[in-house]
Amino acid sequence: MPALDPILADIDRDLDTSLERLFAFLRIPSISTDPAYAAECRRAAEWLRADLSAIGFNASLRETGGHPVVLAHLPKPGAPHVLFYGHYDVQPVDPLDLWETPPFEPRLVTLPDGRRAISARGACDDKGQVMTFIEACRAWQAMQGELPVGVTILIEGAEENGSKHLPEWVAANRDELKADLALVCDTGMWDSATPAITTSLRGLAYFEVFVRCADRDLHSGLFGGAAANPIHVLSRIIADLHDDQGRVTLPGFYDAVREPPAEVLERWRALNLTPENFLGPIGLSRSAGERDRMLIEQVQSRPTCDANGIIGGYTGEGTKTVIAGQASAKISFRLVEDQDPEAVAASFSDFVRARVPEDCSVEIVTHKGSRALALPFDMPALGAARHALEAEWGVAPVTIGSGGSIPIVGDFKRSLGLDTLLIGFGLDDDRVHSPNEKYDLQSFHKGMRSWARILAALAG
Amino acid sequence: MPALDPILADIDRDLDTSLERLFAFLRIPSISTDPAYAAECRRAAEWLRADLSAIGFNASLRETGGHPVVLAHLPKPGAPHVLFYGHYDVQPVDPLDLWETPPFEPRLVTLPDGRRAISARGACDDKGQVMTFIEACRAWQAMQGELPVGVTILIEGAEENGSKHLPEWVAANRDELKADLALVCDTGMWDSATPAITTSLRGLAYFEVFVRCADRDLHSGLFGGAAANPIHVLSRIIADLHDDQGRVTLPGFYDAVREPPAEVLERWRALNLTPENFLGPIGLSRSAGERDRMLIEQVQSRPTCDANGIIGGYTGEGTKTVIAGQASAKISFRLVEDQDPEAVAASFSDFVRARVPEDCSVEIVTHKGSRALALPFDMPALGAARHALEAEWGVAPVTIGSGGSIPIVGDFKRSLGLDTLLIGFGLDDDRVHSPNEKYDLQSFHKGMRSWARILAALAG
Repeated sequence: MPALDPILADIDRDLDTSLERLFAFLRIPSISTDPAYAAECRRAAEWLRADLSAIGFNASLRETGGHPVVLAHLPKPGAPHVLFYGHYDVQPVDPLDLWETPPFEPRLVTLPDGRRAISARGACDDKGQVMTFIEACRAWQAMQGELPVGVTILIEGAEENGSKHLPEWVAANRDELKADLALVCDTGMWDSATPAITTSLRGLAYFEVFVRCADRDLHSGLFGGAAANPIHVLSRIIADLHDDQGRVTLPGFYDAVREPPAEVLERWRALNLTPENFLGPIGLSRSAGERDRMLIEQVQSRPTCDANGIIGGYTGEGTKTVIAGQASAKISFRLVEDQDPEAVAASFSDFVRARVPEDCSVEIVTHKGSRALALPFDMPALGAARHALEAEWGVAPVTIGSGGSIPIVGDFKRSLGLDTLLIGFGLDDDRVHSPNEKYDLQSFHKGMRSWARILAALAG
Repeated sequence: MPALDPILADIDRDLDTSLERLFAFLRIPSISTDPAYAAECRRAAEWLRADLSAIGFNASLRETGGHPVVLAHLPKPGAPHVLFYGHYDVQPVDPLDLWETPPFEPRLVTLPDGRRAISARGACDDKGQVMTFIEACRAWQAMQGELPVGVTILIEGAEENGSKHLPEWVAANRDELKADLALVCDTGMWDSATPAITTSLRGLAYFEVFVRCADRDLHSGLFGGAAANPIHVLSRIIADLHDDQGRVTLPGFYDAVREPPAEVLERWRALNLTPENFLGPIGLSRSAGERDRMLIEQVQSRPTCDANGIIGGYTGEGTKTVIAGQASAKISFRLVEDQDPEAVAASFSDFVRARVPEDCSVEIVTHKGSRALALPFDMPALGAARHALEAEWGVAPVTIGSGGSIPIVGDFKRSLGLDTLLIGFGLDDDRVHSPNEKYDLQSFHKGMRSWARILAALAG
């Protein structure tokens, strides 16, 4: 095994040009959910293909039915082989007027506490995280002419749009994706000084509810007091979804939820994550969740429900005395192991329909769901990654459960038989999916160094 | 009293040039709420002044501190004198992309059911309704050289902006506005075949509620289960505003509400207005209102509450697992006689604040409120107008209470001691305040004939 120092030194030396490459990637507005940006998605894929080819990968675009996948191979006979996953698409940018600088004009900014950060849509999720890994590969190639392990890189373009075509594509390309381990970078650190390895992921069930009452918008002066108001119907549904103890009221919702083992609860208790600590940085101080649970349970091991969006009636400036004909809401559930998204969908449908007046109608659109996933605590790769991260950061990484869902991890297990190591360098204040998304410069820099070390550690 | 026939014949003959005049008036974008259109508002006022002068009125612009008022007199010594009120300003036109034709390029369109209509911003509200009256005066002048009653015309330019300066201006010009009766045209018909006279107006208290939780939008995978969700908070507030019997739960809300006299209830019962009749045309069949009330009570004599708009979180296509930092709703109350808008505002504020978590904040913006108003059922003018409308339409006009509020009617009573006859030819499907506003050609044509008849009837 070659010495790591020259590789780490190359990463340090090359930081500015690494940033230039990332900025070029960030300038491409590859918003996957909006068909108007389809060509930009392809342009982002093409940019990645060219960059990976330049450092020696055999890279190509592969059609999926949606935005193309970038697939790149750099095998190393006799060594372990890893499959790295990320995505080149980004979230929409609205509301645009809340961005302090244009979302697709990346720049370095200094945060109020003095940290330096890369500001742009996708800076963290996931272009920054993807390039953190690719730059580590580049340094290895530059200094050693080879990687310590065989690597396949799979970067998709529809993660923010539910990865509709990916599971099928992965299953169909099983042979070409063969590996010993999957790596996924779409996760975060414990805090800006402490790296983390994510070992469990919550699942997701996501619904859109359209309540339709009158067949047109009505004047409240004429019809108020008689006509059903879809905003009232929807508000009742959302309000009823939680009781006054913060529990989700959907029948059967907690049936399949298991308690974490006593030793895990003990370890969590020792972390002493208080609402003030966890919520203080976002301007809150009290948990709105289940009253009888620790905060770390609320966000890691307990299933949750949130209305993610609602719209109905007049939402412009000033007043309009209208009773809307329709109102809609997006409502999603974070699931934990053994909860079945389809069972949640059935229960939710009954719950909603029971609250819609007979002469009104409701349409429930079910977006992609995913089961929760727990990774084996005894994976050998876990220990190797843990040591590599500790060497870089000077503190042992925390092993965490993530509230987010990364459905591809389940597909890797089912279709390819692969366990996944989830390591990323995002921070809670990265404003992922929000205006002014950022990625700490330290996350990028020490993240590249971390991946360079992890690749070496995985060589065994 | 001269025969009406030549006057009605003149209206029929002159329909095309009446339309040309209305179109010229509609082409002026007199949007009162937007300061950029101040000059256009003045241009609309000037257009009216010139038109009224041309038919013999002594017309002038009068400064109010806001957009000018058009005041025009044509007295008739010995005859009753009426004060006609309307407004020349119009609502904003956004969202502009929903207009099928440009809002300030009026044209005749054919509706899907074959009706002909005038399409433009202000076609009904209120330029069309104003010109319906003025054209009736024009026909009288053309054929008789005089009006059957003395007429003062008061057309303001800030009705869509809350008529801020008008009450003061009316009070200050009390002597010049002396009359026996006020006429207001800003109302509608019962349906396209049945005219109506409005005899009561509900008051209004209108609020906008902004709930703010986290200081940014959050990822529900990271914060779901702990962070307060402003959509949940707002939904709880809206859901709590009604009980399961359809009653408004605001403390004290019904304290000042009186029961209608037994004979009025008897008459209403005889009308047998069923939910199927009233709500059927808008695609509903069951009343959502107070269970123990007749439908006609629900929409005329009982106060109500409606959420007129709500928005929060992600409302675009597809999914976004966000917990919004803020959500807002517009919530209004229709008031009946003796309910005080300020008391409702105080009670509403307490109600809302009691439901916002301690670490979140709420802002309540109170828009203009107005008290309810009931007109005397025994006004002699009411009987005269009723006969005139029946002669024109072939069916007796319906006497309705309007859920809408027209605050100037209260000012006429308070400052001038005048009762008001509210007669208009708008229809429920006129899309007043919305894109593609229209005014039925029949409303314009038979409305002019109706006013010509009413003027004659009011001469006694």
